[in-house]
Amino acid sequence: MKVLQKISQMWKLSLLPICTVKPVPKDIFISQGQVPKKIGKLAEEIDIFDDEIDLYGKYKAKVSLDILDRLKDNKNGKYVLVTGITPTPLGEGKSTTVVGLVQSLSATLFKKSFACIRQPSQGPTFGIKGGAAGGGYSQVIPMEEFNLHLTGDIHAITAANNLVAAAIDARMFHENTQSDEALYRRLVPTKNGIKQFSNLQMRRLCNLGININNINESNDFSLLKEQISDFVRLDIDPGTITWNRVIDTNDRFLRRITVGQSDTEKGQIRETQFDITVASELMAIIALSNDMYDMITRIENIVVAHNKRGGPITCLDLGVSGAVAVLLKDCLMPTLMQTLEGTPVFVHAGPFANIAHGNSSVLADKIALKLVGEDGYVVTEAGFGADIGMEKFCDIKCRASGLTPDVVVIVATIRALKMHGGGPNVSPGQRLAREYSEENLELLEKGCDNLIKHIENISAFNLPCIVALNVFDTDTANEMELVKNIIKCKTEVDVIKCTHWADGGKGAEKLANKVVELCSCENSSDNFKFLYDLDMSITEKIETICKKIYGADGVIFEEKAIQQIKWFEEHNYDKLPICMAKTHLSLSHDKNLKGRPRGFTVPICEVKGSVGAGFLYPLVGSISKMPGLPTRPCFYDIELDAKNGAIVGLF
Amino acid sequence: MKVLQKISQMWKLSLLPICTVKPVPKDIFISQGQVPKKIGKLAEEIDIFDDEIDLYGKYKAKVSLDILDRLKDNKNGKYVLVTGITPTPLGEGKSTTVVGLVQSLSATLFKKSFACIRQPSQGPTFGIKGGAAGGGYSQVIPMEEFNLHLTGDIHAITAANNLVAAAIDARMFHENTQSDEALYRRLVPTKNGIKQFSNLQMRRLCNLGININNINESNDFSLLKEQISDFVRLDIDPGTITWNRVIDTNDRFLRRITVGQSDTEKGQIRETQFDITVASELMAIIALSNDMYDMITRIENIVVAHNKRGGPITCLDLGVSGAVAVLLKDCLMPTLMQTLEGTPVFVHAGPFANIAHGNSSVLADKIALKLVGEDGYVVTEAGFGADIGMEKFCDIKCRASGLTPDVVVIVATIRALKMHGGGPNVSPGQRLAREYSEENLELLEKGCDNLIKHIENISAFNLPCIVALNVFDTDTANEMELVKNIIKCKTEVDVIKCTHWADGGKGAEKLANKVVELCSCENSSDNFKFLYDLDMSITEKIETICKKIYGADGVIFEEKAIQQIKWFEEHNYDKLPICMAKTHLSLSHDKNLKGRPRGFTVPICEVKGSVGAGFLYPLVGSISKMPGLPTRPCFYDIELDAKNGAIVGLF
Repeated sequence: MKVLQKISQMWKLSLLPICTVKPVPKDIFISQGQVPKKIGKLAEEIDIFDDEIDLYGKYKAKVSLDILDRLKDNKNGKYVLVTGITPTPLGEGKSTTVVGLVQSLSATLFKKSFACIRQPSQGPTFGIKGGAAGGGYSQVIPMEEFNLHLTGDIHAITAANNLVAAAIDARMFHENTQSDEALYRRLVPTKNGIKQFSNLQMRRLCNLGININNINESNDFSLLKEQISDFVRLDIDPGTITWNRVIDTNDRFLRRITVGQSDTEKGQIRETQFDITVASELMAIIALSNDMYDMITRIENIVVAHNKRGGPITCLDLGVSGAVAVLLKDCLMPTLMQTLEGTPVFVHAGPFANIAHGNSSVLADKIALKLVGEDGYVVTEAGFGADIGMEKFCDIKCRASGLTPDVVVIVATIRALKMHGGGPNVSPGQRLAREYSEENLELLEKGCDNLIKHIENISAFNLPCIVALNVFDTDTANEMELVKNIIKCKTEVDVIKCTHWADGGKGAEKLANKVVELCSCENSSDNFKFLYDLDMSITEKIETICKKIYGADGVIFEEKAIQQIKWFEEHNYDKLPICMAKTHLSLSHDKNLKGRPRGFTVPICEVKGSVGAGFLYPLVGSISKMPGLPTRPCFYDIELDAKNGAIVGLF
Repeated sequence: MKVLQKISQMWKLSLLPICTVKPVPKDIFISQGQVPKKIGKLAEEIDIFDDEIDLYGKYKAKVSLDILDRLKDNKNGKYVLVTGITPTPLGEGKSTTVVGLVQSLSATLFKKSFACIRQPSQGPTFGIKGGAAGGGYSQVIPMEEFNLHLTGDIHAITAANNLVAAAIDARMFHENTQSDEALYRRLVPTKNGIKQFSNLQMRRLCNLGININNINESNDFSLLKEQISDFVRLDIDPGTITWNRVIDTNDRFLRRITVGQSDTEKGQIRETQFDITVASELMAIIALSNDMYDMITRIENIVVAHNKRGGPITCLDLGVSGAVAVLLKDCLMPTLMQTLEGTPVFVHAGPFANIAHGNSSVLADKIALKLVGEDGYVVTEAGFGADIGMEKFCDIKCRASGLTPDVVVIVATIRALKMHGGGPNVSPGQRLAREYSEENLELLEKGCDNLIKHIENISAFNLPCIVALNVFDTDTANEMELVKNIIKCKTEVDVIKCTHWADGGKGAEKLANKVVELCSCENSSDNFKFLYDLDMSITEKIETICKKIYGADGVIFEEKAIQQIKWFEEHNYDKLPICMAKTHLSLSHDKNLKGRPRGFTVPICEVKGSVGAGFLYPLVGSISKMPGLPTRPCFYDIELDAKNGAIVGLF
């Protein structure tokens, strides 16, 4: 069944042949119809050593971070970012384009290439979205393993996050019900008459300015009464707790809850909420860390609340940072999988792009760039439109990694452009209006404004770009030609017609050629610039993003946001980059404003911090961090076939 | 480093040598000091085929259920159950004895043997308990992998459980905010003019008595208005919902909560709670299922609430049973690990024994029994005392599996016996009173009553037994002799001194010999009998357990329990076995009654059902299904060493 082909450079990559069928079957049929390589074989083909991988079943493996040390003298490959226009709620095929592009680079152009994508949240998988492994003949396989559990990273993050949450409430409870002496006796047990401080407690003492040399030497010095009180009482102000519990399920009833209502908690109730795991700070930390040490530091620095004097309470103060790091140890390693054509993919981290920073991990990209080497290509994806995922890629992820992209691919569809031109509502589970299946040049022409604005935004970072037009069966030649001409005329950017969904890698051959061409320009990434300087004030940074990227006239900061900004400034957290939590369905804050909105003002309701991860996140309008289940969730179609263990109806 | 030795029968098992040191180091040092075999090598040694395992890292593998088909003609090995006396809160070394015993059977007696144990919950691991992989020189390695995430089973159960919970609340919300017509339109989309019922919806129609032949043939028949209403409205009575959300964290503030308080839920708030995952019905289903089909059926039959007419609402009615099965597909496969001496262990399922049925899985035991074959031994553990885990093993697990044990090992310690004799309080994190480190024959003699009662309980099932006295350094020869004499005199049961914690397998050699001797009696397990008949009424079954096993004078059923029992009777759920949710710290319902309590009456506050899993569970007194974190949780000591990724201070 397999045809072996050699990649021109050093990899001995065997490609999996695909035999495309029209009409294109459902994703899961295509996935289950392919025989993937054993993942150990793929790892060997791309020069990953046997002791550098941990298998998770037959088709997934985690790759050790030690590989970065082995490959440290390799030059990086070219770094290609895939982003998109403002999408319809159905999505416009960005992941599909990432996969199609690497399939083409590998199978058609014989370039070493790697795709880096995010792990999908199971919430939307069982809610509205279904799977998210690309689609058609450009997907990651086996798609059911990709979509369910994967190697357990999101579960690990959930567990670690909720341990911190439990630690916060339990600590408040114990402080409220015990004297300083009792707390001290329990927190620091005595062994042979000597107080046994744990390492994390020693660090806290040090941060409190209590001299720990004495402790190190003899371990038997006594703290003063006030020092004991300072040490044992975090004195958390319950109203300031920003650390929420998380769950990887679309559970709308957890959007606002009251906890502590059992008698055993002695009336210490409080209101709080669950967020979806992919919006959590720990998810961002996994995505942004450069190594294990970096991860540990970021975890320790997480601020979960303020104390009653207004100072920050960190994970280190809670004594839980070490346990969190231990729970996330394996999570920090990217997971290797393969495309339908047998080329390598890293799946790692899964922050949403509207309510989080929306990019796969720094470590996956870094390892992939070393593995493909100087002549190779790493294609990574930024979530939702270029106003969100790409802006955060440049201003947050590139700052964390020190990497800069060589070229940006912006994915567009005729369908979404028509919607932006004033076409009828597009909604999952509802029949598409005929405007989308019949030629309509008028809507299309108007809608190109959205694409043009995104292209301008890419230029704001001094990055070269190409438009990948993800073609549907119903798109007409006239429509495609129109988009091409408008965009070329107004922006000088090329629009490339792509059919990788229906044709696999060969449907993205022109795109791949164009990517190679743009990357071969000398120093293509040297001109890259950030949108804003970190030394600007928080409000200036937010205003810059809103005006330059969203096209707003201005920004209104609500009182709560102003107070929060003040707190960040007072506590030296104001030099961090900004991660806007904004709807992905419009360039503006209002999901109903399609096309290229103008003349609007962005409301900033709150400004919160993920200071451990390393950014502040303003809430733009009302944005929910917990999706819900629709009347008929995807799970209605999903079943397990007891005869053979096959998964039915996943997508 | 490795010494190869051959097991006398067919396995080519290589044993890992251990070099014991006194005083015995911490568990994690012993674990990290051993070089485990690659798990693929162990699998090969015990005749598991390469395509029958899925690796999860280097030292864990899931074993395919297909192996049961391949080995179906093998005879089963001997089936050894390890249980214990009523423990102190520190535990008396039951898991340690399971591991020590198989190490001895393999390494000392050259018998093929397998240990089957439960996966530990991460809640207690980070709370009070620390690790749970056995201990000292009798443990499962690598212990950090055993204790953290393992192969993700508990996480998968958490995710599946919480999907059902989200589906319940979302369904109520949508039913309360939509007309029958709107619900029908959304629940059953129309394609080309034909209503598309999913398989699960067809099954629901069938259960409602709506003729589905018409649908099967043409898929376009129209339901009557009342039929539509019956079909689209589950009409859940919110006050009857028994399905709680779960989390694998000791989070006391989730013991009672209010959900739905965001404006988006339009005032549909309700009180509910989180349980710890290991108490969940899905955990019980994983532990009790005989195959994938059995699992699916149990999931479909789960009753999550009543409708407003008092009828049961099942997972099938919610349309979510298939998705739950899909999420639990891999979870149904046992995880292979190894002991410190390199012998095989299955880790599978993790129900607590006080608030759940407390046994590892039917499937792990069944596969292990086939793998060791006629001359081999499978040692499986039942949680907490013989009043809880063992009773449930016999009356619930053996009923589900059809298996019966050959011999029961009951683990006792001098420490726990002294406590039962009136010794001072024993509490984690607190210094042990001197009664426990100095010879005290008086307390010990009195305390033997507890052990005697447990031995009598084992006799109630017509099972032969041996006492394994798990020896501590401070136990004196006089003390051990006293226990031996009392027990032999009053019960004719042998007490065997065991030092496997300090000495590994060879410390359990006498125990292993005795186990082999008892198992070699012809038809040892043929006399086994259940404690009660399933045809007895629910109250009779509960009374039988309370009187015969706990030694109670009688039972008081509170009004709520009486109503619940009535409901189960009316809906034909009264032929199920009983899973008592009772404190493990006393034979009675009152944790303060040590020794052999008499003259007490057991209060039954509620009787709930896990009818999918296949049992009813009475709540005995006030029993919490969610542990909490103490003032100084274990996590204070835990850190990740960034230099080498080593886990520090886990235990």
